[in-house]
Amino acid sequence: MRTGADLATIRERKPLVHQITNYVVMNETANATLALGALPVMAHAKEEVEEMASVAGALVLNIGTLSQPWIEAMLLAAKAANQAGVPIVLDPVGAGATRLRTETAKRILDEAEIAVVRGNPAELATLAGRQAEIRGVESIGASTSGSELAIAAATELGCVTAVTGPVDHVSDGTRLISVANGHELLGTVSGTGCMATAITGCFLAVARDRPLEAAAEALVAFGVAGEDAARGAKGPGTFHVALYDALYNLDPETIDSRAKAEG
Amino acid sequence: MRTGADLATIRERKPLVHQITNYVVMNETANATLALGALPVMAHAKEEVEEMASVAGALVLNIGTLSQPWIEAMLLAAKAANQAGVPIVLDPVGAGATRLRTETAKRILDEAEIAVVRGNPAELATLAGRQAEIRGVESIGASTSGSELAIAAATELGCVTAVTGPVDHVSDGTRLISVANGHELLGTVSGTGCMATAITGCFLAVARDRPLEAAAEALVAFGVAGEDAARGAKGPGTFHVALYDALYNLDPETIDSRAKAEG
Amino acid sequence: MRTGADLATIRERKPLVHQITNYVVMNETANATLALGALPVMAHAKEEVEEMASVAGALVLNIGTLSQPWIEAMLLAAKAANQAGVPIVLDPVGAGATRLRTETAKRILDEAEIAVVRGNPAELATLAGRQAEIRGVESIGASTSGSELAIAAATELGCVTAVTGPVDHVSDGTRLISVANGHELLGTVSGTGCMATAITGCFLAVARDRPLEAAAEALVAFGVAGEDAARGAKGPGTFHVALYDALYNLDPETIDSRAKAEG
Repeated sequence: MRTGADLATIRERKPLVHQITNYVVMNETANATLALGALPVMAHAKEEVEEMASVAGALVLNIGTLSQPWIEAMLLAAKAANQAGVPIVLDPVGAGATRLRTETAKRILDEAEIAVVRGNPAELATLAGRQAEIRGVESIGASTSGSELAIAAATELGCVTAVTGPVDHVSDGTRLISVANGHELLGTVSGTGCMATAITGCFLAVARDRPLEAAAEALVAFGVAGEDAARGAKGPGTFHVALYDALYNLDPETIDSRAKAEG
Repeated sequence: MRTGADLATIRERKPLVHQITNYVVMNETANATLALGALPVMAHAKEEVEEMASVAGALVLNIGTLSQPWIEAMLLAAKAANQAGVPIVLDPVGAGATRLRTETAKRILDEAEIAVVRGNPAELATLAGRQAEIRGVESIGASTSGSELAIAAATELGCVTAVTGPVDHVSDGTRLISVANGHELLGTVSGTGCMATAITGCFLAVARDRPLEAAAEALVAFGVAGEDAARGAKGPGTFHVALYDALYNLDPETIDSRAKAEG
Repeated sequence: MRTGADLATIRERKPLVHQITNYVVMNETANATLALGALPVMAHAKEEVEEMASVAGALVLNIGTLSQPWIEAMLLAAKAANQAGVPIVLDPVGAGATRLRTETAKRILDEAEIAVVRGNPAELATLAGRQAEIRGVESIGASTSGSELAIAAATELGCVTAVTGPVDHVSDGTRLISVANGHELLGTVSGTGCMATAITGCFLAVARDRPLEAAAEALVAFGVAGEDAARGAKGPGTFHVALYDALYNLDPETIDSRAKAEG
């Protein structure tokens, strides 16, 4: 893992991260991407997603507020990205909560080559065919531990998985990296999971041949920013604001020494 | 009224509050819901709204940025919620400003059983067939005073009404509760009315057999949070941020003593 | 230029600024409009846009997250605004990045009378038929300098153009006003360009017979707010929050003395 070096590359190259994401977090993921140092672009019309995705550094698909035209756009964008060699990260928001979400996440995984799936335990357990309990888009429980789940889901889905929680587990089915950075206030702001996915897209854009490391590095960077943002925060509002400052002020020179990563 | 006890129940049970709301405030109402202690979920596809609404603790319908597919989804969700006994709160944003909004609000009220309608004086006056002036989504004036309007609209619409302003008036057509909590900075941030509606959904979720009290308690809680947020705010930006902190830090032990509620 | 006087008029009249804008920035432009002192309303359904646009003080069209129904709504709203004498400001977000965006911006300019187009150099260069490089929605370069571009695009498009950057250039094809207010942190927050466009709509609403001045005054006001917000900001998060406070606290008495405008 080389979080600092990859972060420096993001800031130097400013890769375009094309995001087809949900209405709730669009502003948040755009600002997180920009604060880290990459360039976000949101575009979802079927008339333009192929053109945009094929010139992007990475494509982020997030199914948080689905509807039919958006599903079609995600599939078109994903195929264009695959053809252009642009890596894709999928956030299966609410998979397990409704049939539409579960089926759409599976369909994207079937019809396109996904580099990384980042989700909570219930979402990943659902996609891996395990027992899980989800309330809306909040993971209540999964029958399998995070580390086992990351490995099992990676094997099942044939891609890198990032199962996030108090400790994050990232796996390609063989290797496992655990990341213990972060802060509990992250759970009090809507869309921090979606931001973690967008940040994963930023790292993938500069490390497309190392998706396991890119996913883990993104969680280190986001987690360290969360730790910085928590200092002085008085609740979810001030924490949320400080999170953008913290992403912007992440120091490539010292971040590797702050990583709580194993594996 | 038992604002503190119901707030404690919200934080303990974390009810799912399904929101079909406008694009402008989606992130804001999700974060207000989460900061208070409940779980927000946004879902608007006709393929999934029934499934989501029927497992929710409450359903919030907000017509702030309507279009035909969203209207259909709101009606489907409302009927599923009714069938499952899930209480519904309606925010008729901009009723009176365009025919589409007035007619959609009336249609939802006709075709579904609504527990609470929360709006500004012009919106409620429009729905109750009174004279009103609205500019965009801002109430400029209504021919009837807030307290009379709340009672008249509740009688006319057959549900609890919450008419918000410097003093809020909540009625079921018979009883009237007035809530004087709040702060004028609430009027300088877009979507604070929508947040009040979402918070009403949170309280309804734990007090579905007491919609009048739930609506009044929500306005007490939101108003007290507004008072806390105003302390130290330098304008709408810092106030908006502090509002999430304040919702998160509301104290169930002391909130009843801070309620400025009568009736 | 009379930025202070026009700002005072905005706060007195509270003009309705109807915005058909992108999902990413809807909350941000609504809050910027409100903080400045005008009333924002978002409405995009073809069933209501004509009704809303024709009673507005100004119409803002922003193509940041296009799809077919929104394009149709923008054209309907634009024609209704033209008929009612309501001035329109267009933000051609991402023109040059995809065919859909370039063609839609051109189509709006062809089919409606636009008072002001505000965009970055690459967007305006694309619309004026010049060479430009754009990455997503970020201008990377244009073959023509900002001042020349503003004049050439105004002549080509037959309306006022506002080309924003470290120094902004506003022209009606004959006259040129350059505005050097602002702060580099504006570039670190998503949607600040869109906010500048919304603010342009606010000034146009009270100065519809002086679109060149209105556009320049808006950039002075937004730039001065950016300067105020930068004081004490620790990064994009705290800057973004302070920007709303600063817009709210802009002083009509002193703003003209702070204008760095020439021409």
